Amino acid sequence: MNEDMVLRKIEDATRKSRGGGVHLGIGDDTAIWRPTKGFETILTCDWSLEGSHFLLEKHPPEAIGWKALARATSDIAAMGGIARCFLLSLALPTELTGKWLTKFLAGTGRAAKKFGCVLAGGDTTRRKDVLINVSVVGEVRPGRALLRSGAKAGDALFVSGTLGQADVGLRELLAGKGLARATNRNLSKHMYPEPRLELGRWLAERRLATAMMDLSDGLSTDLPRLCAASGVGARIQAEALPRVELRDRDDAMQLALHGGDDYELMFSVAARNVGRVPSEYRGVALTRIGEIVAGRKIRLAGEDGEEAELVAGGWDPFRE
Amino acid sequence: MNEDMVLRKIEDATRKSRGGGVHLGIGDDTAIWRPTKGFETILTCDWSLEGSHFLLEKHPPEAIGWKALARATSDIAAMGGIARCFLLSLALPTELTGKWLTKFLAGTGRAAKKFGCVLAGGDTTRRKDVLINVSVVGEVRPGRALLRSGAKAGDALFVSGTLGQADVGLRELLAGKGLARATNRNLSKHMYPEPRLELGRWLAERRLATAMMDLSDGLSTDLPRLCAASGVGARIQAEALPRVELRDRDDAMQLALHGGDDYELMFSVAARNVGRVPSEYRGVALTRIGEIVAGRKIRLAGEDGEEAELVAGGWDPFRE
Repeated sequence: MNEDMVLRKIEDATRKSRGGGVHLGIGDDTAIWRPTKGFETILTCDWSLEGSHFLLEKHPPEAIGWKALARATSDIAAMGGIARCFLLSLALPTELTGKWLTKFLAGTGRAAKKFGCVLAGGDTTRRKDVLINVSVVGEVRPGRALLRSGAKAGDALFVSGTLGQADVGLRELLAGKGLARATNRNLSKHMYPEPRLELGRWLAERRLATAMMDLSDGLSTDLPRLCAASGVGARIQAEALPRVELRDRDDAMQLALHGGDDYELMFSVAARNVGRVPSEYRGVALTRIGEIVAGRKIRLAGEDGEEAELVAGGWDPFRE
Repeated sequence: MNEDMVLRKIEDATRKSRGGGVHLGIGDDTAIWRPTKGFETILTCDWSLEGSHFLLEKHPPEAIGWKALARATSDIAAMGGIARCFLLSLALPTELTGKWLTKFLAGTGRAAKKFGCVLAGGDTTRRKDVLINVSVVGEVRPGRALLRSGAKAGDALFVSGTLGQADVGLRELLAGKGLARATNRNLSKHMYPEPRLELGRWLAERRLATAMMDLSDGLSTDLPRLCAASGVGARIQAEALPRVELRDRDDAMQLALHGGDDYELMFSVAARNVGRVPSEYRGVALTRIGEIVAGRKIRLAGEDGEEAELVAGGWDPFRE
């Protein structure tokens, strides 16, 4: 196995997916991509690292491949954009360039097809640990991208889906023996997350949201980021949070507040437009969880009506 | 130190460089970039990994930062493109988020300014080893990109610069004590390579080259790639190779044939255009080293006139 053979394998595995404006794919010094006339290009990248984001003994290669692309593509959804193509950087040990790589690429390929995102190029090298970096190129109509900075006091705050579900899936995966299988919704959500591309695009095209971001590190970590970018505060109603059904209700609440990896969308909507937000969009629930307020404080109103500051407890790699 | 602080540090360090079509930089879910009307977008990415591509005890952070961007930007030069913006993915231990990161970013920032390439976004996480991945976005006029696949039998083959120089620099670096300093040309070439952006663009705009690629893994590894893409063979004149001046002439020849990391351009030129290739372009030597031939063989003609097959001896991470 040499580098050119690994590249050919990647090329073969993804040959079926064409389009996305990719005019020249893997095999030259760069890919060539033709931007759509009248659109802006949006660019994002995401790490997926062994030990940090997945475990070789627990996560099947298909799921690692799927999720590496899904994580990065979720940022495209969070702007209200359309995913076009991606670059896959992969470092792995020689002994994983056989079956493991084939399955990994099958997972990436399925995700690429589902998200409408075409492999354009990449870089491979040998490494003891499996390291993945995915860059995704998307497009959005000029001025329509939904930034983090547009929220105003008085806006209502919404989230899609169920919060904390991916973390429940992670727990189940860690509790199981050997390679996990996506045998229920929680495990599926953790292993094969689906970026909310259609919802994001729908909100952007209708100019329904004033600000948006995806929830990757947990509500209590990500909401302060949206608020800081917009120069506002927020008040969340604990009982409104769409939680996983667990016997331990406190646990479900903690997971909804701090659980990471959900890749749901959080967005603010001007009061006059709240009535235009349906309770679900194409099968994904949309829930009003609170409102944007003046000031900088982020507060959580409990079921008893008591308010407390929401303290970040989500995923931050540099928090010791 | 938390993730947002690391991001802010990166943002601050690179705030000076603006433009490149970047409309929204670090701080949101994606960057927004405006492609130039009438151009195609070219995309590439490159790993720079501790232990594989640099050593923390030998390479100063400025050089690691510079070279991570230079490596990826060299692929843009190899297409004859213009570098526009880049995404920086960085994983590092918390103890390097202070001075080390500041110096690293200074190196990346200097390279960005030199190459006309603006930081648009990225991703950071914590990791025991320093891991870097850089994606570069460039542009080229439609149909003008110089691919690997255009070489024809009868074309002359050229390289820029001196081959093997970066490997001499690497040897000197490894032989030295502690952090290296770029005290001579060989060390500079290894630590602060300069992608041949101007040369590449000049060749593309004048339609002078029929095929082109950059030499990152060594002539004996990269030439077969260009030949395979074009469906041709090549004959190299050993004595014509632009070598480093070393006391041991055989050593200099081996380095010219197999030394990696030079980031020079290799390009083929139709026989009728050979006279239009100057002996140097903006201070960079251009040397005719052989010709493209029919068939698939790649042969090396020695000073004695004897010909032998050129066997790949350059850098291939998967070659055990």
